[in-house]
Parts: sequence; C-alpha cells; structure tokens
Amino acid sequence: MLTASLQALVDELGRLPGIGPKSAQRIAFHLLRSAPEDARRLAQAIVTMTELTTLCSRCGNIAEGELCRICTDPQREPGVLCVVEDPRDVVAVERTREFRGRYHVLQGALNPLDGVGPEQLKVKELLARIEPEGVREVIVCTNPNLEGEATALYLARLLRPLGVTVSRIASGLPVGGDLEYADELTLGRALEGRRPLEP
Amino acid sequence: MLTASLQALVDELGRLPGIGPKSAQRIAFHLLRSAPEDARRLAQAIVTMTELTTLCSRCGNIAEGELCRICTDPQREPGVLCVVEDPRDVVAVERTREFRGRYHVLQGALNPLDGVGPEQLKVKELLARIEPEGVREVIVCTNPNLEGEATALYLARLLRPLGVTVSRIASGLPVGGDLEYADELTLGRALEGRRPLEP
Repeated sequence: MLTASLQALVDELGRLPGIGPKSAQRIAFHLLRSAPEDARRLAQAIVTMTELTTLCSRCGNIAEGELCRICTDPQREPGVLCVVEDPRDVVAVERTREFRGRYHVLQGALNPLDGVGPEQLKVKELLARIEPEGVREVIVCTNPNLEGEATALYLARLLRPLGVTVSRIASGLPVGGDLEYADELTLGRALEGRRPLEP
Repeated sequence: MLTASLQALVDELGRLPGIGPKSAQRIAFHLLRSAPEDARRLAQAIVTMTELTTLCSRCGNIAEGELCRICTDPQREPGVLCVVEDPRDVVAVERTREFRGRYHVLQGALNPLDGVGPEQLKVKELLARIEPEGVREVIVCTNPNLEGEATALYLARLLRPLGVTVSRIASGLPVGGDLEYADELTLGRALEGRRPLEP
C-alpha cells in the first residue's frame, strides 16, 4: 500500500537496532514530510560517517584516520590500559574523567553459544601491546554480566604471566540506588566488595 | 568524545521522531559496524524516497508521479470520499478492505492552539472535488480526539449545503476489548451509538 521507494526505506529503517515496523513507518513518513534538504542531510551524514570514521588500528576505538584521539594524545599514560567490549564503552569511561590511561576495545565479549571465541575478539592485539607499550596495569572494564565476567577471567589468566597487574571494575549498588530494590546478586557483590570506612 | 562525522550522524538521527540521544548513538554505532554497503543502501533509500515519492496532486495520498494508485484505479468508486488526516491513515483504512471509494487527505486536523486553521489543511481542495467528481457521500475518518472531532463537525457544516451525505466513523469499544477497562467517554459513545440487534 506504500509506494515502492517508501516501502524500500521502511524496510531499510526496520533493519536498524531498536526500530520496529511501526517506528520505521513513522520515520519514513516524517522524512517524506520534511524539507528534501533535511532528508538529504541525514543521508549525507550516513555516507560521510562510513567514509571518515574507522576503528583505531592500535586500540579499536573510533577514529578519523589511523589512530584515535586518545592513542595520539601525549598526555595519556601509556602504562595503564582499560579493556572494554565496545567503542561506546570508551565514551562511558571517558565521561567519568577518572581514567588517564589508554584503551583497548575487544569488539565484543566471549560468548561460546554465539560462536564468539578469543579469535573473534581483539585478544591477540591486546597481548601484542603489553611489551612494546610497557603496559604494567590492565583494568578489565567488560560488562558485569556472564559474558563480560568470563572474558575478564580469561584475560586475567593470559595477562598475569606477563607480569601485568590485572584488576576488575567493582560491582555493587549504583550511586543513588536503593537497597530495597537491588537484586540479590548485585547486593551480594556489594557486600563481598566492601571496603574499610576511614573516618 | 565521538569523531566529528559520527557526532554529526548522531545529531541528525536524534532529529527523527521517537529517536532519543541514546537510540541515535546506538544506531550510529550500528551503522559504523555494518558493512559499508548496508549503510550506503540506507542512505540511498532515503534519497530515492525523497526524489520519487510525492503527494498525489488530487487527494494528498502518497504517490510516485502525479496521481496516487487509488486515484488512478478505475475500480475505485469516485462518488464516495473517505477524508483522513494523514497518508498513514489511508494505509490503515485500506487494510480493512472495507472501503472501495477514494480518499482525501487533509494533512492534519484543526488545532487553533498550534495555529492550524482550515487554510493550513486541504479543505479548499476537498470542496473543489465535490462537483467535478460527482461526490455524493463523504465519510469523515479523522481521529476520534478533540482535533479530529472539531474537524469533522467543521467539514460537515461545509459539505451538507453542497448536497453531500456526510457520515462519521463510529466510536465505541475496540473489537476484542474489555468493558471493565474501557474509559467512560468511549463506553458512553458506545452506548450512544448502539445498534439494533437483528436475530
């Protein structure tokens, strides 16, 4: 019942994550009603992004060019690596302004059921950075779920023999959270990870 | 913290209806990870749609070319018009397979607070179709909300003097619905619009 070109657009939009058939139709009709230059600007932004944005050849973070902004920043400490699953996690950690080292993006987490083993992740690339960059500490910032925890344990086993200090981000209650609504796993982790209160 | 081209794409995606900043970022990163030809196909679909799909010069429905598929279909009865607010409503009515006439899309509903008066809608165009197309019945299918009802009453007042039968779609309980959960306005309308049961 739609025109061929509109249906084709609805189909393409429906392939995007989080966009169901209704949202796809809503967006397509929105673009139909917008000024043609607005729709064209969106199309151009997609093309430009795919042409300019790549992944950093060293750490796997997003980059325009060979290396990302963090890898080329002389202010960042080269001895400490924060290992994350996804480039979006780099954005999340950067937002805390708590970390002054560099990153390594695995591009996923171990998930044998989905066929993701160490070869599908940037594990070899991580190990290859330790010696030449003089890395002495690795903070494993994979997600605190089954896959992320398995990945963290796997990396710890590989990295410790190289003389690297390996740590894992803390699990516990979110700041501003509510004890009453915490699930028992999170609360258990929070108890386990208790720290001395220094008055 | 994003590259310029990725941030530009996130901004453009964030302008779409129903896409918040988080979804925009999620979609942009999805496109970054997709094969370049997938992203380019989406961009091309946007451009192609804006170039090919227009609004039918007669009824305001979506069309590729001057007139839409329904206006050019000789099987459709020209004497009965279904008046809707939006081209998407044509899709909804067509899906019922209950209507064999033609459409007229107002491109909105009366909404004085938002500055939408009769001049902002395709009302003049509707009146201009009555005589030459021999329209004898108009079914007003605007939404059953404040704006849609006001628009329906307004159109009825304009159309009746032209000798046109004007009807309004029924309001009532949705099929498969539950009396207990119906709001009082809908249930009131359902009672008011009761029809004789013929055994």
